[in-house]
Formats: sequence, structure tokens, C-alpha cells
Amino acid sequence: MQRYFLEERAEVGSLFLISSKDDVHHIKNVMRQNVGDELIINFSNGSFKAAIASMTEGIEVKVQEALDLLTELPVQITIASGILKNDKYEWMLQKATELGAGAFIPFQGEFSVVKWDERKADKRLERFRKIIKEAAEQSYRQHIPEIDFIGELNNISRDFDHIIIAYEESAKNHEQRALQQALKSFRPDDRVLMVFGPEGGLSEKEINLLEGVQVGLGPRILRAETAPLYALSAVSYHLELLEQ
Amino acid sequence: MQRYFLEERAEVGSLFLISSKDDVHHIKNVMRQNVGDELIINFSNGSFKAAIASMTEGIEVKVQEALDLLTELPVQITIASGILKNDKYEWMLQKATELGAGAFIPFQGEFSVVKWDERKADKRLERFRKIIKEAAEQSYRQHIPEIDFIGELNNISRDFDHIIIAYEESAKNHEQRALQQALKSFRPDDRVLMVFGPEGGLSEKEINLLEGVQVGLGPRILRAETAPLYALSAVSYHLELLEQ
Repeated sequence: MQRYFLEERAEVGSLFLISSKDDVHHIKNVMRQNVGDELIINFSNGSFKAAIASMTEGIEVKVQEALDLLTELPVQITIASGILKNDKYEWMLQKATELGAGAFIPFQGEFSVVKWDERKADKRLERFRKIIKEAAEQSYRQHIPEIDFIGELNNISRDFDHIIIAYEESAKNHEQRALQQALKSFRPDDRVLMVFGPEGGLSEKEINLLEGVQVGLGPRILRAETAPLYALSAVSYHLELLEQ
Repeated sequence: MQRYFLEERAEVGSLFLISSKDDVHHIKNVMRQNVGDELIINFSNGSFKAAIASMTEGIEVKVQEALDLLTELPVQITIASGILKNDKYEWMLQKATELGAGAFIPFQGEFSVVKWDERKADKRLERFRKIIKEAAEQSYRQHIPEIDFIGELNNISRDFDHIIIAYEESAKNHEQRALQQALKSFRPDDRVLMVFGPEGGLSEKEINLLEGVQVGLGPRILRAETAPLYALSAVSYHLELLEQ
């Protein structure tokens, strides 16, 4: 059954309006659905079965039941990662999307080996978004992660419930408890920023301005494009598979 | 500091020769090290600090002291994975080595999209081993994972303490507890076989002949090259970071 997307949080019994011209056209003229017919809508809090309540310019739907189709992580993880060479960054975006990342914030790290080229920025972001969308569809995601370049890290928003910094020195110093302590403090729908350096790592200045929790990702030194995948896998394992 | 590997047993005070062209190039031209400079070498009996004693075609090093380093997973994970297109398989090998895999067994899956070409096998395995060795050095591994092609899956050894099968249907069926149950049953130095299908997945026949535990890796559908990275990250998180 065709899926439609609404940004709102669904509640069983409540009414929502599908106003997107494309969706309305699709429901009316392609699917030829009428009042009373059912459809599946991906809301911000999951997939729900809904029934068409009325049809005018928009289509009013009444939420009937939550569907057991929840493929999003129980927390919203934003991956802020220093830009890398194209192929590595695109690869990271694809894999991190498969692993449940909620959004991406590429930044120009103080120690970044590559420089973000403003003249190519639009083309590059367009390509990034295509890779992310295809990975989201292929991995049964219900949300397509957004991505926007912010320039240097000091432009980043601090408006998160948790700020986690993957710090290479933590691995070298055998730091082993901070990640699990952070994961144990996560509550459903918390907004989490996870920050990863470029190949050259994060600078002291960058780490200090974030005022986040520094965590190690095990005793091995992971490449810049690998660390986000470890972190997302650990989040999934802890919150989705591990008995709490 | 980059790690190097020598097969011999180290003794403090004794001299050894680094003759590998790649290692010599890396020490001389990449790290720009000279006589007297220190490096860390993984010998068959552990990691040692050594100093460069002389540099000719090879590099002579004098062992100074044993280091108390532990970067290997507490269990030995063998990744048996259906062969994939070259680039995908090579980056899976690189990332899985960073994440602590102990050995690799590529096999010709019943549903493999690509066929293993025997005429190119030696060249291909040689290239795989180079990628694995470089990833092991870069990630501070103390052991270089071995890799050998076994043909079809029915040629695989059953001589393991645990056999884990990553089964896509488990994700679709919302199986959520088998992985943590398996990880909780692991004991130090256990030998674990983890089996992953090719793009086409594992066949019923392949799954049945393994007589292993089928586990899901979360609710999202992971690509063939991504699933081993999730599994290794979960093993590391559970055994190395999570308070037992």
C-alpha cells in the first residue's frame, strides 16, 4: 500500500489533513480512494493506519491504529562529522542512514584534510541527499535524514538533550564507561548530537566549545568514517536489542 | 603511533629487522623516522616499544620494553560472509578489521550475485590481505586477521564455541533478543563464527546446514556489507564497554 508522510505526531482517533497537492492527486486520481478507504501514513512517531474522513481540496484522515512498523531509533541521533574525501563521506552517509541516523551536519573541521568548496556545495549536497534517500528507502527507514553544511563547528546549534563527542584520546586513555553511561541516560525521543572529527581529529578548541560528554568507542582506533557507524550500532544494540 | 608486525618472539634488548617494503616505506617516508626514534611493534608474544638502531634497505630495531596494550576483542570473531562486488567486500574487510574481527572466511553464497573467479583468486586474496594488514596497523590491532576462501558454505568448519547467523528475516520478524542472549553466553577467548549472507541473503539450505543461532540486528534492513560492522560493534560495546 502506498505510504504518505506527515511531519506531525499521530494519536489514534485524531484527525489530520493531507494537503500536499501530489499526495491529494495520488489518493484521489491514482488510487481512486474515497471516504472510508484506508491508507498508511508515516508520522513523526511511526506508521499508522488511517481512514479517509472527508475529501475537499485536502484530504482529512482519522488515525485508526499504530502499525508495528517502527524502524526508527527510539532517540533522534544527529551525526555532526568533519568533512572527508567525497567517497568516504558518501559511504559514511549511506551506512549511517542504514543504521538509523536522524540527521547529518557536515562541518569544516580545524584539522580537516579537505576543504569544503562553496562553488560545488549545492551539487555536492544534492548528491549527498540522493544517497541518503536511497539508503533510507532500502533500509525500510520511516524518516529521511536531513543534511546541511554549517561551515565551522562553532556554528552548530546546542539545542539538544545530549551532546556526545567521540574523542580518539578516550580510546588511547582506555576510557570505557562514558558511552554506556550516556546511553543509559537517553529517554525516548531525546534529541542527541554526536560529534566526530575529520581524519585529523577534533582540536582542543572544537572539543571545548561543544561542552559535551567525551566518549571512547573501544580500544581500537577507528577511522573518521567508521566511528559514527560504531556509535549508531551501539545505540541500536543498547536501546533496541538489549533487555533494559 | 602506527603499529608494525613481526612474527618473531620479542625479547627486551634483542635486535630485529623490519624488511617489509611497505613498512620500511611507511617508517622512512610517511612517518619520517630516523635512528633513535621509537615505534611500537606487535610481536607474536605481545606489543613492545622498540628504537630504530640502524636504517639500510631494512630497518633494524632494538626492543626496549613490553607494553601493557590490549586492543583485541575478548572473544575471537570469525566473519564468514558471502562474496560481494570487489569494492564493497574490500571496504567491509577494512572496516571489520578496524572493529576487531579475528578472521575472515569469504564463501560463494547460493544467492551470491557475483561469482568467485578461481583464475583471479590469488591476486584477489593478496589484495584483501594487504587491505586487512593496513587496517590492522592503523587501528592499533595486535593481531592481523587471516582470510581464506572456502568455496561454498558447506565447506566451512564447525569447530567453534558459538555459531551465529545474521538472518534478514529476523529483522522483518522483529526478533530482538537472540543477539544479546548470544553475547551474554560468550566467555573470554571463545571462538565465535558469525555468518552473513551475500546481497541475495542466505538460502534455507545454507541456514539449516550451519545449525547456528539466528539473530536479528535491529529493525532496519542492513546491506550485506553493513551487517558485519553492526555485529562487531555490538560485540565490542557489550563486552568492552558495557558494565557486566
